[in-house]
Amino acid sequence: MNKPQVPDFLKNIRIVLARPSHPGNIGSAARAMKTMGLTRLYLVEPKTFPSDEANALASGAVDVLEHATVVPTLVEALAGVTVACALTSRRRELTTPLSTPRETAPELMARARDGEQVALVFGNETFGLSIEEVEQCNRLVTIPGNPDYFSLNLAMAVQVMTYELFSHAGVGVEHLRAEAETATRDEVEGFCVHLDATLARVGYYERRNGERLMRRMRTLFNRAGLLREEVDILRGFLKQVQRTADRADAASVPSEDREA
Amino acid sequence: MNKPQVPDFLKNIRIVLARPSHPGNIGSAARAMKTMGLTRLYLVEPKTFPSDEANALASGAVDVLEHATVVPTLVEALAGVTVACALTSRRRELTTPLSTPRETAPELMARARDGEQVALVFGNETFGLSIEEVEQCNRLVTIPGNPDYFSLNLAMAVQVMTYELFSHAGVGVEHLRAEAETATRDEVEGFCVHLDATLARVGYYERRNGERLMRRMRTLFNRAGLLREEVDILRGFLKQVQRTADRADAASVPSEDREA
Repeated sequence: MNKPQVPDFLKNIRIVLARPSHPGNIGSAARAMKTMGLTRLYLVEPKTFPSDEANALASGAVDVLEHATVVPTLVEALAGVTVACALTSRRRELTTPLSTPRETAPELMARARDGEQVALVFGNETFGLSIEEVEQCNRLVTIPGNPDYFSLNLAMAVQVMTYELFSHAGVGVEHLRAEAETATRDEVEGFCVHLDATLARVGYYERRNGERLMRRMRTLFNRAGLLREEVDILRGFLKQVQRTADRADAASVPSEDREA
Repeated sequence: MNKPQVPDFLKNIRIVLARPSHPGNIGSAARAMKTMGLTRLYLVEPKTFPSDEANALASGAVDVLEHATVVPTLVEALAGVTVACALTSRRRELTTPLSTPRETAPELMARARDGEQVALVFGNETFGLSIEEVEQCNRLVTIPGNPDYFSLNLAMAVQVMTYELFSHAGVGVEHLRAEAETATRDEVEGFCVHLDATLARVGYYERRNGERLMRRMRTLFNRAGLLREEVDILRGFLKQVQRTADRADAASVPSEDREA
């Protein structure tokens, strides 16, 4: 299977970091974004940018930093945006709709696909987003987590949110799957018949409920999702067992008959 | 709304880091776990542990490190486990079933809820999991991402996977929502009637198709999900507009009448 393509419309989704303090977080956020197919980074009044530290942590995503847009206010970062989501983890006395990344991602992706500009806005590491910043957004988005210990750093939050978006991009992991053909129902049944004969052949059914045993075995092999190659290996083994049984029978023939 | 509880059965899910090289990643992984309600950390042959660096990056999750189980082999880390998932991002010539975190999380959570022990196994930062390590697992799990640039560091991968599990834990973000009462259909309609009268009162309908305008306004306010408090504010504004119109009418009465 060919390597899938990242859909082009992801360029309509921008990540906005408002007043980030630590250059390392800017770099890690860029890496997180690019891993999830996003490239548009806006930085509102970053404390330090550009910086070697950001470049180091961006790893192969330095291009995202090089193309980042630095602006003095959030208003400018949101120019042309239809839906801006404020990432927040604390309770706010605001009636702006609050949802999880999972709930909100399908709408954001649909809007981006339609050509709208969508923004995800992350606040400062220590102070989060100010009330004025949140008021410029249409949505509050909260990542669910342990209510007694919620400690997502900025880049981790970017990673979780972009992962959530990417999981709705229709890019699967099929290209990483090893090629393998699933056995058909009748191939599995052919194996079960073979197994039944072999169990009988080696005397395993003596003093046992053979019907019940085979029912368990059929259930197992029907459930296991056998591959064609696995059926071949198992049937090869059964053939070898039967040959061994034949040799054993031959060996147990009384010696006078053998010599005749 | 009360703060929700992390479900107790999450203790049946363990995170296994196989041969981690960087102490910082161990600390960040612990923080990522605890943020998503997990506490059981197994370390297979860590290069350096315990360490100040891990403790520093664990932030408030040092307890996870203190209770971590250090073992010499993956076999020991998987003792008692029914389903072990190998996190991998490269194509493997193995027919072990491969799925995404999203696909596999419901089964893992169901097993943990039933009391089974479940493991998520992450490999070394540079080399990933060895073929022998993968063979001890029942599943391959791959986080989807940009096929042309996939660069999730170890702690980021732990964060994404544990976020995915936690999102199936039934712990929402409702406790963070501001309290607000949605207006009923008839309250919205009451407002629309008021608006219609006000638009007429100030002469906005002159030379305009009033019916069509009100249809647009009704659609807008029905879609907007008005809160009761918002209806009150808007109707207060309309009343003030009507009072202003009354004053304007009074002022425009010819002066001779006024003096009478």
